[in-house]
Amino acid sequence: MKVLVINCGSSSLKYQLIDMSNEIALAQGLVERIGIEGSILTQKVDGRDKYIIKTPMNDHKDAIELVLKALVDEKNGVIKSMDEISSVGHRVVHGGEKYAQSVLVTDEVMKELEECAKLAPLHNPPNIIGINACKELMPNTPMTVVFDTAFHQTMPQEAYMYAIPYEVYENHGIRKYGFHGTSHKYVSSVAADEMGKDIKDLKIITCHLGNGASVAAVKNGQCVDTSMGFTPLEGLVMGTRCGNIDAAAVTFLMTELKMSAEEVNTLLNKKSGVLGVSGVSSDFRDIEDASSKGNERAKLALNMFDYRVRQYIGSYAASMGGVDCVVFTAGLGENAIETRETICKGLEFLGIEIDKEKNNVRGKVREISKDGSKVKVFVVPTNEELMIARDTVVLVK
Amino acid sequence: MKVLVINCGSSSLKYQLIDMSNEIALAQGLVERIGIEGSILTQKVDGRDKYIIKTPMNDHKDAIELVLKALVDEKNGVIKSMDEISSVGHRVVHGGEKYAQSVLVTDEVMKELEECAKLAPLHNPPNIIGINACKELMPNTPMTVVFDTAFHQTMPQEAYMYAIPYEVYENHGIRKYGFHGTSHKYVSSVAADEMGKDIKDLKIITCHLGNGASVAAVKNGQCVDTSMGFTPLEGLVMGTRCGNIDAAAVTFLMTELKMSAEEVNTLLNKKSGVLGVSGVSSDFRDIEDASSKGNERAKLALNMFDYRVRQYIGSYAASMGGVDCVVFTAGLGENAIETRETICKGLEFLGIEIDKEKNNVRGKVREISKDGSKVKVFVVPTNEELMIARDTVVLVK
Repeated sequence: MKVLVINCGSSSLKYQLIDMSNEIALAQGLVERIGIEGSILTQKVDGRDKYIIKTPMNDHKDAIELVLKALVDEKNGVIKSMDEISSVGHRVVHGGEKYAQSVLVTDEVMKELEECAKLAPLHNPPNIIGINACKELMPNTPMTVVFDTAFHQTMPQEAYMYAIPYEVYENHGIRKYGFHGTSHKYVSSVAADEMGKDIKDLKIITCHLGNGASVAAVKNGQCVDTSMGFTPLEGLVMGTRCGNIDAAAVTFLMTELKMSAEEVNTLLNKKSGVLGVSGVSSDFRDIEDASSKGNERAKLALNMFDYRVRQYIGSYAASMGGVDCVVFTAGLGENAIETRETICKGLEFLGIEIDKEKNNVRGKVREISKDGSKVKVFVVPTNEELMIARDTVVLVK
Repeated sequence: MKVLVINCGSSSLKYQLIDMSNEIALAQGLVERIGIEGSILTQKVDGRDKYIIKTPMNDHKDAIELVLKALVDEKNGVIKSMDEISSVGHRVVHGGEKYAQSVLVTDEVMKELEECAKLAPLHNPPNIIGINACKELMPNTPMTVVFDTAFHQTMPQEAYMYAIPYEVYENHGIRKYGFHGTSHKYVSSVAADEMGKDIKDLKIITCHLGNGASVAAVKNGQCVDTSMGFTPLEGLVMGTRCGNIDAAAVTFLMTELKMSAEEVNTLLNKKSGVLGVSGVSSDFRDIEDASSKGNERAKLALNMFDYRVRQYIGSYAASMGGVDCVVFTAGLGENAIETRETICKGLEFLGIEIDKEKNNVRGKVREISKDGSKVKVFVVPTNEELMIARDTVVLVK
């Protein structure tokens, strides 16, 4: 059984074809500049050179057509015919309050995705376009949608509600949804397996630290809180997003700097975070480099990032009444050795003790806590595509 | 030495005359409806009936004149002449980044208070009016200003900075300031005394829980973080303030509901918090009452309030690398027995254990943790006026 996993952005598309007999990705690729001059597809297959196709693509249908062509290409492909693709799993950002689980694509689901688009105006529309294009090209292949928000739908009301008039929540859906759900779900389950314990007996804090970043509290296998909120803007300091900030600063900015709501939104989403503080870059490697050369603002940006993750770990331990395990994942979480060390420094009172030697690891599943550490700490590379493929297999069966 | 402490609001004025030889308040009073029809002064002196004066007051000068008259009143007053007032301490909300300490009133200070007014447009202007009125009436009495923000000025940069473009911080002063500083300072020092320890050796979390509410992390006697931010809107769920919320919800509200920045500001400051969630009241007693009668939204409001305080305790333990002592103060913190119990429930992993029996207390200094509790928990009635008077005595000397 081979599952094609698709993640559509507004002008890009990521894909993986996964053989579910052994859960290995046969091919993974990226299509960029869809509908823009210079469209390009890059496909990677283990042990082979990159396969690159440069050809005009007007829309996502063109892009998916090319993806299928690349996958069956005699020389560069990995399957003989499209028929080998048993099903397609689509990543969709926002499932609103309706979806706590992945679902098969139906007309009703498509209608509801349109309705959720108001809550994720930048993300859901390209996701929907991708699904429709796929349906046209593979009308008989079963398809599923896997939501970034679904795993967080188990949060209790006191965690997901904002203290705004209840009617505003009811009428406009303003509440905490949380994102990166597929990743938090995946890495928490891997960590439980590594501990040789049932996830239903564990209190796990998962730190998905990439350019977008979020923390989740996973109690007995269910998410009970997460740092991203109504949108991915809330929570941690990120590459270009501010994370937590006094809501009155937003209105102050508008009044004082005579900015529109949209301009403030852009400022806080695209020009803030470690980029805004450091003035150097949104890429943590550039900032670490600048910091090591004595750039004070770069150092501050890193300190702010670390400090807030540390606070969330304390906060989510309080949410769950304790913590058994902390997991680091995503770009920084998997690779930034020093960041992991700095975050955990000062958390010894919780029983979190990192082993310097073991922590010297990048991109591999490994326990990095000291042998006697009360709380186990893990690095777990995330694999959202595999999670989407697994959900797809279950639903299609 | 008798110190007059004054706290001016836009149409009200609170005052206390404190005898610093024994730190006892000789009289305390409230002037309401200044500049509005129905102006009234109410003065309380221990062991006597309330002294009420109803007379038109056009401005704060009229009000302060009446305060002085009430204090020296032959029958209802507590001093023989104004000369007995050795100094006046004024509470001022916002001292910006300039003031980490209380200061004597000088022309330069007054000028800088005007400059800070942009940061606290609702609070600083009446504070300034009050000082000026007082100076006119008591030109030879030394006066001080004690800032609500001053105690928090020791926060490290990673705690007070928001992850917005650094220039926006530099040019517009958008950062975390924190409020209730005088209260956090006072109750943390009382708790250290009660523990018989030097505050310089302690990690204390102070929970000022009233209609406005904030938590502070006090490490070695210095504030290292606090939940209120650029304005008093951030942090905990409050009577009518939302506390933490995704900044993108603010811009969404404006776009979706076609609200102005000012309207959103009013919504989040005046119509949110437990009032907005419960739809019942901003007074916690009303909400507790409704909740006990089965009102689900009232129950939710209380759960949200408790949950967020609990999270801040975990978060600030992480900020300080542990916690030795938790202090509850202000209206709810001093009196809401059940609220204190619910907040601490689930924090046993931090070594916080409340004694049900000892916790049965209102408005008195008392340790309420179990005998063996690793972390000591205290109720400490706040006394911002005494703190202001103490600072005044030091400065005037």
